[in-house]
Amino acid sequence: MQEANRQIAVIGLGYVGWPLLLSLSKKYSCWGLDTNLNKIQDLKVHESNNLSLTSSWEDIGRCDFYIVAVPTPTNKNNKPDITSLSLVCEELAKVVTHENIIVFESTVYPGATEDICIPIIESLSGLKLNQDFYVGYSPERINVGDKEHQLENTPKIISGSNEKTCLEIKNIYKSIIDSDIIIASSIKTAEAAKMYENVQRDVLIGLANEYSEFCRKMGIDILEVTSCAASKWNFSRVFPGLVGGHCIGVDTYYLLEKVEKLELDMPIVRTARETNEGKVGKILDRMIGELKQRNQNFGDSEVLILGFAYKNDTSDIRNTKIAPIIKELRKLVKSVDCFDPLVDCQSANYMYSIDVLTDRKALKSKYNAVFKLVNHSEFCSFDKTNMIDISTLV
Amino acid sequence: MQEANRQIAVIGLGYVGWPLLLSLSKKYSCWGLDTNLNKIQDLKVHESNNLSLTSSWEDIGRCDFYIVAVPTPTNKNNKPDITSLSLVCEELAKVVTHENIIVFESTVYPGATEDICIPIIESLSGLKLNQDFYVGYSPERINVGDKEHQLENTPKIISGSNEKTCLEIKNIYKSIIDSDIIIASSIKTAEAAKMYENVQRDVLIGLANEYSEFCRKMGIDILEVTSCAASKWNFSRVFPGLVGGHCIGVDTYYLLEKVEKLELDMPIVRTARETNEGKVGKILDRMIGELKQRNQNFGDSEVLILGFAYKNDTSDIRNTKIAPIIKELRKLVKSVDCFDPLVDCQSANYMYSIDVLTDRKALKSKYNAVFKLVNHSEFCSFDKTNMIDISTLV
Repeated sequence: MQEANRQIAVIGLGYVGWPLLLSLSKKYSCWGLDTNLNKIQDLKVHESNNLSLTSSWEDIGRCDFYIVAVPTPTNKNNKPDITSLSLVCEELAKVVTHENIIVFESTVYPGATEDICIPIIESLSGLKLNQDFYVGYSPERINVGDKEHQLENTPKIISGSNEKTCLEIKNIYKSIIDSDIIIASSIKTAEAAKMYENVQRDVLIGLANEYSEFCRKMGIDILEVTSCAASKWNFSRVFPGLVGGHCIGVDTYYLLEKVEKLELDMPIVRTARETNEGKVGKILDRMIGELKQRNQNFGDSEVLILGFAYKNDTSDIRNTKIAPIIKELRKLVKSVDCFDPLVDCQSANYMYSIDVLTDRKALKSKYNAVFKLVNHSEFCSFDKTNMIDISTLV
Repeated sequence: MQEANRQIAVIGLGYVGWPLLLSLSKKYSCWGLDTNLNKIQDLKVHESNNLSLTSSWEDIGRCDFYIVAVPTPTNKNNKPDITSLSLVCEELAKVVTHENIIVFESTVYPGATEDICIPIIESLSGLKLNQDFYVGYSPERINVGDKEHQLENTPKIISGSNEKTCLEIKNIYKSIIDSDIIIASSIKTAEAAKMYENVQRDVLIGLANEYSEFCRKMGIDILEVTSCAASKWNFSRVFPGLVGGHCIGVDTYYLLEKVEKLELDMPIVRTARETNEGKVGKILDRMIGELKQRNQNFGDSEVLILGFAYKNDTSDIRNTKIAPIIKELRKLVKSVDCFDPLVDCQSANYMYSIDVLTDRKALKSKYNAVFKLVNHSEFCSFDKTNMIDISTLV
């Protein structure tokens, strides 16, 4: 069909779906769907002739091009939790009709679209892939808090269940993206490419964390070493630290799950993941060491932690590794305050049962030690006398 | 002293020392020293007013600035072999005099210059570092066969035993390099930076080799996946394959030796190294599989291997992983010819006891299979009918 007549629905209006929807609505008649009613209420002000928002699947039934951008997190045991994705597929099975195209953007392990998503849709709808409806996979590459690399100027990988679908998907994305559209030869190739991007990152950070322990033992500053090495053309400038968030560590667990099912092993990936998880304990140990140096009665210490988000200058607290540090430290010392003016303290409380202070006035006048664990720009104005920076703890 | 009056000696005239010497001789009066008499004879044609070549340490005794660029290989047990470096230090101890500067460019594990090189020179010469003579470390970054990244246009890390030495070393390198000179705060920082560059590369290739096994199992083409992923701004475009040569794998063994001495472990680095070593066996197994498909009487197979160098379009055979493949395969089949017109067949025979054919006329008219294991441009003209490319074996 003519692209211009497309009715597009974006399902899941988080950091991936929402900018995508906004961009698409400049060219196409669009619906945005999210099951979070509060979010829909908040976003309503953005509605226009081309852009409608809803929490009801019935509303998007007339669309013919669906883009799925729901979260694919892990559970407490670090196993993939594809509940949202499966539920979306069940709902899509009810609305999908002939000639419709469904594009998945959520990160999954290679094979998941064909092994999980398509079978759900086929079995519940009675429709057949590539006869009645079509599927594609186009991995999202949104980098939270990154103003340089945006949807519009970042190359986009696409794939489709057949050649014609690829071209239709390409035309849609091409109309909003001012960069290369790369057509992968299969859906699982596109899935594997996205997985490789994030797993490579996880391994590089794992190596940085491992090398920083070596440098520490040698009395060498890992940050200076990294900066020197990064003057080589093919060195990847990656710093040691905590790996939180919804993407890098999480995706690795998705891959490892698939690897296990295949009865394979990926020892480098597995070890890198363990190293990154283990960094929490190493940093905690060093914080305790710093506190013991400062306070003979260590147990009486009053501690301030600056930063709760998983990433500098963002409000994103998904899978933040500051949470376990606070929880552990609270078992050992008199008090641990955490200040992060960027985060939503209600969400922090809901997700981690931790009260995050967002108002500087709520801070005590004196602490035994202040640990700056996240480099929000806002913290630059803090007194550095009693402050221990994350860079000295990694 | 005035840089222009410097008399510079470059010790070790291999792929690092020779281009460095040529470049320096445009600005300074220079001596080049190599213990290989044949090499000195071959290079004699390049002698000029500013450039003298010798195998005799006495000749370079009047120099005041020494640059050491001797090989730092590993032995058969993959342990660092610093014999050349130690010998050079012993010889330097005899010629070094007051105010002389010695700069090491050879890759070593962090700490080696201060723990090994300087003590040898001090003890044998009776001179004292930073009173009588001075030392620096400036890691070489020559990439064999790379026409884009040359000595002159690549940022150079330098370090020195004190601040004044740093500046003098900087001035020398600045005069021949048209890129950034990065001053590391200590010698071991500069050593650690170089080590990190190569170890990161080894780990990235290890990951590529690990991921390619996963992709193979999934029926996904790792080369396409890599090419797709490389469209992301921070993805490091690294391909799976054999890791040979004098530098990437070797340097990792240097690091692991130091790590062991410190009673540390670097499991990611160690596992990546094992994965890369293990790729030889995996490729060999697949070659055997291909042969068995082609020839019921597998043992009668006549095989041609294209390429012996460790790297495409170079003559460099140091630590080439084609050698163990040939040796293993020769135990199993009737004949294995290896053709590589770029390599020096005498060196190949001397180093590996393998006769490498360099003349196409010496090839048989027919083979059961032709394995192209190195992508020399010259091989493009070969008939592809019966050819198995390395890309299908990784």
